[in-house]
Amino acid sequence: MPTYSCVTLLTDYGLDDGFVAACHGVVARFVPGVRVIDVTHLVPAGNVRRGGTVLAQTVTDLPPSVHVAIVDPGVGTARRTVAIEAGDSVLVGPDNGVLSWPADALGGPRNAYELTNRELWLHPVSATFHGRDIFTPVAAHIAGGLEPAEVGRALPPEELMTLPAPVSRVTEGSAEVEVVTVDAFGNVQLSLTAGQLASLGVRSQLALDLPGGRVAVPYGETFASVDRDELVAHIDSAGLLAVAVNGGNAQHRLGVGPGTVLHLSAGPPTSS
Amino acid sequence: MPTYSCVTLLTDYGLDDGFVAACHGVVARFVPGVRVIDVTHLVPAGNVRRGGTVLAQTVTDLPPSVHVAIVDPGVGTARRTVAIEAGDSVLVGPDNGVLSWPADALGGPRNAYELTNRELWLHPVSATFHGRDIFTPVAAHIAGGLEPAEVGRALPPEELMTLPAPVSRVTEGSAEVEVVTVDAFGNVQLSLTAGQLASLGVRSQLALDLPGGRVAVPYGETFASVDRDELVAHIDSAGLLAVAVNGGNAQHRLGVGPGTVLHLSAGPPTSS
Amino acid sequence: MPTYSCVTLLTDYGLDDGFVAACHGVVARFVPGVRVIDVTHLVPAGNVRRGGTVLAQTVTDLPPSVHVAIVDPGVGTARRTVAIEAGDSVLVGPDNGVLSWPADALGGPRNAYELTNRELWLHPVSATFHGRDIFTPVAAHIAGGLEPAEVGRALPPEELMTLPAPVSRVTEGSAEVEVVTVDAFGNVQLSLTAGQLASLGVRSQLALDLPGGRVAVPYGETFASVDRDELVAHIDSAGLLAVAVNGGNAQHRLGVGPGTVLHLSAGPPTSS
Repeated sequence: MPTYSCVTLLTDYGLDDGFVAACHGVVARFVPGVRVIDVTHLVPAGNVRRGGTVLAQTVTDLPPSVHVAIVDPGVGTARRTVAIEAGDSVLVGPDNGVLSWPADALGGPRNAYELTNRELWLHPVSATFHGRDIFTPVAAHIAGGLEPAEVGRALPPEELMTLPAPVSRVTEGSAEVEVVTVDAFGNVQLSLTAGQLASLGVRSQLALDLPGGRVAVPYGETFASVDRDELVAHIDSAGLLAVAVNGGNAQHRLGVGPGTVLHLSAGPPTSS
Repeated sequence: MPTYSCVTLLTDYGLDDGFVAACHGVVARFVPGVRVIDVTHLVPAGNVRRGGTVLAQTVTDLPPSVHVAIVDPGVGTARRTVAIEAGDSVLVGPDNGVLSWPADALGGPRNAYELTNRELWLHPVSATFHGRDIFTPVAAHIAGGLEPAEVGRALPPEELMTLPAPVSRVTEGSAEVEVVTVDAFGNVQLSLTAGQLASLGVRSQLALDLPGGRVAVPYGETFASVDRDELVAHIDSAGLLAVAVNGGNAQHRLGVGPGTVLHLSAGPPTSS
Repeated sequence: MPTYSCVTLLTDYGLDDGFVAACHGVVARFVPGVRVIDVTHLVPAGNVRRGGTVLAQTVTDLPPSVHVAIVDPGVGTARRTVAIEAGDSVLVGPDNGVLSWPADALGGPRNAYELTNRELWLHPVSATFHGRDIFTPVAAHIAGGLEPAEVGRALPPEELMTLPAPVSRVTEGSAEVEVVTVDAFGNVQLSLTAGQLASLGVRSQLALDLPGGRVAVPYGETFASVDRDELVAHIDSAGLLAVAVNGGNAQHRLGVGPGTVLHLSAGPPTSS
């Protein structure tokens, strides 16, 4: 019986090659009974913020697990690799920030360890596939019962890399927000919580300042709160304000993407 | 030991985000021993007919399962959500027709229940992610042994939403048929069974009337019954007439798509 | 307890349809306890070399398994189907060469059998979906304990189809090599091993002759051995020379693809 019944994998490996299967294979060889859940393998190559965002917004829906996150443009260099205990789970990956938001979502990093115990790795260690040779073997060992402290030397959690938080400045009646992420439906998630939104006095409508001008967006419960092809702002399943088009793609409609900073206000758009 | 050893998932969530993993996570948390099979998550957003078609054509290959189908453009509105007992399985999803063809493929709906027992859901229920908060938890409960009747109030099966059947009119020597679906190879599946085809007197060739004119299509056993890059009509793995291009893409060649209605006859094309 | 704890699947089915799920379903019905690992389902349709390459480079990372490889443009014709014992595993698929490199990677074919025992198949056998009706059922039987010799008549391993090896001619100070494959990152893998590369006297740099002229490529340990957007040659996780662009796509930069033959030399590019 493994200590953790689940290992989860998030990578930028894509699904065309055998890389993901190799990681599944390593887990199956080390801990035959463990379940492997693929969070996603379609993180754009090297996009640490996107990887961290997806895992952070999924991790609380997953059982206690060893979560492996491999978005690692520095693979093979001297960059640090870590295991982090947070909440009921352990996070394993490069220390480039990809784990910071997931750790926060689990309640914050409790203990951290640098992966220095080479006995746990698969040798010879390749220079470019640490997912197979380091991260997954270490995760499998932990799932199988190894104490996280055995993976290497302890690291003060405050020394872990973190990512700069998305812009989110709430002022009197308006806010500067950032597009946190865009999902496969084209729904545009903004860095504003339901509570912050309420503090702005948004009721039935909000206004977004876009490069092309101010746009009024009705505020509703769900996509179908508006007519087909209409914009709708709503609180999404991660608890953040998001803009959708009912039956369509809000990213295309608004012309924004992750990282775009927008000005948002409660009032209706100024009519001329 | 779960009552159903399998939960299957079909959605339009795509594979870029963590939505599918969240559903896997819910199942793993509720029923640790159950297997999860992904039918597909690449149903085009909101395409209920496509979702129903894929699940209907796959469900008989799957073990007795709780099948979850989430193509749900009305998520968060007052639309009905249901569990349906059919054959050796239970279907769970929105009552928008996506479950009707799968239920028929399993022998027809035997009992149906509206999902009204909120105790089974994950709270707070989001407005846009009922896959995580309602459908998967209910499915997991059933897989784990809950009687389907416990999910909510009984619903006469004849009140369940159904989808209009594809056009399929067989007359003397010819037929009007509809493109049911197109697979990833570009094979074009038509609404005509092997038996209906035989009744048309098709032997070695059939004729399709396309916008650009009449096209003769040799009828064969399999793709390689014709030369490379040639059209071939055959009975596909779902038992329906399909048109393929050996080593190529029939959808592109014919310029048709799901829903296109075509006239088909047994005779060879009229030669001038 | 199954004899093999794992069945792996590699196909060109794509992920849009229910074909992969049907294969999972067959395995689950026959051998409930077995793990299924998806190697990839995104092999380009009918690309036998690509399928064989991916499985060969992944198979040694997987546990002892029954590996099913279905890239089968001749499905439904009289082409031979086989099971091959190699190393600690069994390979099942069409005898069109897709299994030859994987068998070699496992130590070479030890025994081979033609799939002639129709009792193991699912009837009626469709003409176009032998993955569901023949290959996966046979694989599941073997995983469940059936002796491979029971799947059909013995076949001398030397009669198995093999694929022509990629071009790889090493001479004094230079080599003709072929692009073996390109991964989802655009990394270009060449048919030259680390040992062969050393024999060429490559130290810090190599030269590639491309249609557009000679290109100098620094040789490094890993992607980030060079500045962002720079080319780098390295030994990849399969032990072969590969060319990458740090943070970019080498296939696009070099304008090559699988099968392209290149001249490579150790010396620095001729300076004018």
